[in-house]
Amino acid sequence: MASASRAATPLLKDELDIVIPTIRNLDFLEMWRPFFQPYHLIIVQDGDPSKTIRVPEGFDYELYNRNDINRMLGPKASCISFKDSACRCFGYMVSKKKYIYTIDDDCFVAKDPSGKDINALEQHIKNLLSPSTPFFFNTLYDPYRDGADFVRGYPFSLREGVPTAVSHGLWLNIPDYDAPTQLVKPLERNTRYVDAILTIPKGTLFPMCGMNLAFDRELIGPAMYFGLMGDGQPIGRYDDMWAGWCTKVITDHLGLGVKTGLPYIWHSKASNPFVNLKKEYNGIFWQEELIPFFQSVSLPKDATTVQKCYLELAKQVRAKLGKVDGYFNKLADSMVTWIEAWDELNPPKGGVATANGPPKK
Amino acid sequence: MASASRAATPLLKDELDIVIPTIRNLDFLEMWRPFFQPYHLIIVQDGDPSKTIRVPEGFDYELYNRNDINRMLGPKASCISFKDSACRCFGYMVSKKKYIYTIDDDCFVAKDPSGKDINALEQHIKNLLSPSTPFFFNTLYDPYRDGADFVRGYPFSLREGVPTAVSHGLWLNIPDYDAPTQLVKPLERNTRYVDAILTIPKGTLFPMCGMNLAFDRELIGPAMYFGLMGDGQPIGRYDDMWAGWCTKVITDHLGLGVKTGLPYIWHSKASNPFVNLKKEYNGIFWQEELIPFFQSVSLPKDATTVQKCYLELAKQVRAKLGKVDGYFNKLADSMVTWIEAWDELNPPKGGVATANGPPKK
Repeated sequence: MASASRAATPLLKDELDIVIPTIRNLDFLEMWRPFFQPYHLIIVQDGDPSKTIRVPEGFDYELYNRNDINRMLGPKASCISFKDSACRCFGYMVSKKKYIYTIDDDCFVAKDPSGKDINALEQHIKNLLSPSTPFFFNTLYDPYRDGADFVRGYPFSLREGVPTAVSHGLWLNIPDYDAPTQLVKPLERNTRYVDAILTIPKGTLFPMCGMNLAFDRELIGPAMYFGLMGDGQPIGRYDDMWAGWCTKVITDHLGLGVKTGLPYIWHSKASNPFVNLKKEYNGIFWQEELIPFFQSVSLPKDATTVQKCYLELAKQVRAKLGKVDGYFNKLADSMVTWIEAWDELNPPKGGVATANGPPKK
Repeated sequence: MASASRAATPLLKDELDIVIPTIRNLDFLEMWRPFFQPYHLIIVQDGDPSKTIRVPEGFDYELYNRNDINRMLGPKASCISFKDSACRCFGYMVSKKKYIYTIDDDCFVAKDPSGKDINALEQHIKNLLSPSTPFFFNTLYDPYRDGADFVRGYPFSLREGVPTAVSHGLWLNIPDYDAPTQLVKPLERNTRYVDAILTIPKGTLFPMCGMNLAFDRELIGPAMYFGLMGDGQPIGRYDDMWAGWCTKVITDHLGLGVKTGLPYIWHSKASNPFVNLKKEYNGIFWQEELIPFFQSVSLPKDATTVQKCYLELAKQVRAKLGKVDGYFNKLADSMVTWIEAWDELNPPKGGVATANGPPKK
């Protein structure tokens, strides 16, 4: 491995929260117990607050339902989706830790080709603690892994890398397909274990899936807004995508890295493609305008914090996507509200700008 | 696999030439016989023309030495490197086939994780015959492979992909490291078989290695110039890198794709790191200026053929890199000569522009 990597991976026990949007499946936490029990869990209940989520003994957790969100955020609670797993981003906001790992309750422990259980969280931590290389492609994948390095022709000045803000993990078994692909290929399963991690190059957008995702809250947290989905909204299943596109243009602007690849989880069940189609169809149309928008976004030089970048992005969303559909004006408003709520719960240290005016010291 | 892929891979027996820069190792062709024998070989002898290269019985080949190159190109032979494997690009020029596969004589047949011999050529053909996706990243790698597809959030308008111009294969055993890395890690071996192919995104440069490389001559051939290396030149081991950077900015400009990943070959022996350091040291310095240059190259809209792009690139090399070292003025001259020689041996069909003036009809 290249020298910038660390020899041993710390557990980061006191520096990482696991955020889970509702737990419907009681086996879920039991299966993950060996890996998750050392960590604090933040569970954000996406639906009816009167229903009780049962958490098995031995886990250290806090649970928020809609009533809690309303109570804590007041009118700003409007930015958090209801009856949709997009509500998970409330958990990113209330966490006080440096790192977040988020996972869906239909994702189980996968096995590597040797049959060993994969400790997904450990691999995410490795990814986040080793640098990224967004400015030049390394053909032997992550140069910081054991047994790998930068290949001939890789500029030496770029070998230090940049801090990694996001670690995007993948899924064995049920692939993360859209409704049309699900309908066309109901039996397709992902059986290919690709033993790689790589940096998504600067300037390249990707479909960020929230099923198995880790990030550095301090570096990129305020960009991880999962938008307005679910109850009362004309779109679903684009929450993580939206967060991914916003995150990627901001990490590119701030010189941070996004890695994808290992670790795999086992995605146990496909969601209903008919329900998904209903949620997705507006997104499928709109996306054709969203991608050119995000590909051409340019953030000003004085946008030096994630918050400043995100508010600038909200402004551009309103200016350029408002004409695609009125939904995007509402979303732009919510993006601003999200940053306001974030800064309220996470008072900026040392002069970081807020949505409400000049830097608070 | 996504629908744009083809069900069966044709052998392309009459459409592909294998170009080899000298064969020092008699085992080389014997080992590859089951896979290479159906194809025509073009061997370009890199050193003393009085030495004879022995080719085992049964292979269909043509062999060129320095005398042949001088005879065929006359004064334009100056653009072909002498005593360096960079001379292989002469083989690309004399070929009349649509596809080229080039491989070094210290590269042997690798085995996949199941122990089966890897037919590298077949995988390259698959890569070249399926589209590339340079405009958006697919997290499950090549969406055109069996068992894979585009994931949720991948814009539908981009799923047709673009034609693949280059297939860059990798190496098990001895990794393709530069001299400093070889010196620091003499024992490092690449043992990780990564079962993936991916498109290198638009706007991203990569270190293209010539050891195990296939390309579509009709789409990108004239950009595959391996520069001036070896005898009388101040630099070596940057031949393929140079070709790769030129190729990538041109494929990006023309809307073509570059894939990397599978297939692996077995790279049997590390070249001498001390000799390599002598060849590379200028390149290691210069590269720090070359990369920003290639990252900022912009080709004009009317550069609609590879030749036009390449001549424009030669102009910019002279204008912007000539001040780095006089070598780049010489290289820019050779780039023009290369295109002149290419067009001489490959008379343009149907009005393709040449280096010498208006389109010939």
